Amino acid sequence: MNSLIDPLIQYSLHLADNSLILGQRNAEWTGHGPILEQDIAISNISLDLIGQARNFYQYAAQLINQSTSQPVNQLTHWAITEDILAYLRDEKDFKNCLLVELKRGDWAVTVLRQFFFSTYQFYLYQQLQKSEDATLAAIAEKSLKEVTYHLRWSAEWVIRLGAGTDESNKRITTALNDLWPHTGELTVNADYENILSLEEIAVDLNTIQVQWMDKIKEVLSQATLQMPENKWMQTGGKQGKHTEHLGYILAEMQFLQRTYPGVEW
Amino acid sequence: MNSLIDPLIQYSLHLADNSLILGQRNAEWTGHGPILEQDIAISNISLDLIGQARNFYQYAAQLINQSTSQPVNQLTHWAITEDILAYLRDEKDFKNCLLVELKRGDWAVTVLRQFFFSTYQFYLYQQLQKSEDATLAAIAEKSLKEVTYHLRWSAEWVIRLGAGTDESNKRITTALNDLWPHTGELTVNADYENILSLEEIAVDLNTIQVQWMDKIKEVLSQATLQMPENKWMQTGGKQGKHTEHLGYILAEMQFLQRTYPGVEW
Repeated sequence: MNSLIDPLIQYSLHLADNSLILGQRNAEWTGHGPILEQDIAISNISLDLIGQARNFYQYAAQLINQSTSQPVNQLTHWAITEDILAYLRDEKDFKNCLLVELKRGDWAVTVLRQFFFSTYQFYLYQQLQKSEDATLAAIAEKSLKEVTYHLRWSAEWVIRLGAGTDESNKRITTALNDLWPHTGELTVNADYENILSLEEIAVDLNTIQVQWMDKIKEVLSQATLQMPENKWMQTGGKQGKHTEHLGYILAEMQFLQRTYPGVEW
Repeated sequence: MNSLIDPLIQYSLHLADNSLILGQRNAEWTGHGPILEQDIAISNISLDLIGQARNFYQYAAQLINQSTSQPVNQLTHWAITEDILAYLRDEKDFKNCLLVELKRGDWAVTVLRQFFFSTYQFYLYQQLQKSEDATLAAIAEKSLKEVTYHLRWSAEWVIRLGAGTDESNKRITTALNDLWPHTGELTVNADYENILSLEEIAVDLNTIQVQWMDKIKEVLSQATLQMPENKWMQTGGKQGKHTEHLGYILAEMQFLQRTYPGVEW
């Protein structure tokens, strides 16, 4: 089991980073949305995601503190916390999928990205709640109700825009073509997932790939949208290779803690 | 009763604007806070406030639509909605207190402002839930539970920073001196409040002034902070005379709807 600690830390960070970065992106809507009610809805989804991230970071911090050989621990000379993991890691240590770090875009990009991501999280957490790792299972179980709502909400918006006016259909078609090459990474295992899924700790993403695609096809069809033909997919985020967009998010997000570590005022 | 419609619209807008603008300000913290847990807490407070604003705007919209003589209705040629009231009014039509529009500042400014405001809202809603106007009473009653939590949370932070380190005490002392001249307006009646409180529709703010001050004194004393001696108070916000800061908030917030009215994508 001990050789699994390192992949388990990486996996927890990956799950946390995915939720945190999308939560951050969507939080940019607060107060700028087109409709007050939807502004509140997307902001609530942000908070759900940041809350999930917090749970995964807490677990990662606990694992790192137990495992004294971790270099990050020697570096800081104090116990690792969820806040250190969120606010003081470098870009290359972030393991989120590229999809979640892309620019906010318009409302069509936002709801479509949320739909792609929530579909992934829905099938992921459904299985993760049966994980051999009791902490991951508990976080997944707790989060699944939230994600079920995110999925329904975002699917409804995709249909509303796709089957709406000419302009809204044009907007979401553009969003679909722009986002599509970044969706493949959602269901491709990283090394840490390959190792941990053998032990039934992580979800083997191969097992949710078909479910994910079926759901996407169903909703795009209801939205009168064509599946993109492009099959070439971007990857790298889960291994720490990011687009320039992540740097901007982190710069804004980490400014306070990097300038004044441990700040409370 | 009919002559009360106009003050009632103004009062509902005032209550909505107060909550919306502070909600907007605090939402700037999402993802930039010093501590993940507090980031989530202040963002939740933002959403509570924006939700309260939405309820008051819905009521104002209903009153405006019933009262056909309203110029804003003739101007837009369509039914007024909560979104139009939030996203398409001009600065001079906003009736929020100056306190809520001041710059975000550091964490000390944020928690102290929230404390001043939540104390005001707490005593206000306690009385407003007995209003002769059933809709205002219902919104106040529904919101009071949220505000009770905001008050406890912000008071705890004021005490934590005041009685904390030298640096945190210095920060919140500065915040106290900066914010203080903007607190008086919270408990001074505007014309519409004078008219409506005679009918027991609005809360007569004279009746909550002492309660507000007692609570502030109690918490500042626990925080080992001196009451400011400055007695001169800024006013004007409730009559539409604002600082330059409100313009910046509205520019950001209203950009989308002003550029593409009725946008849904």
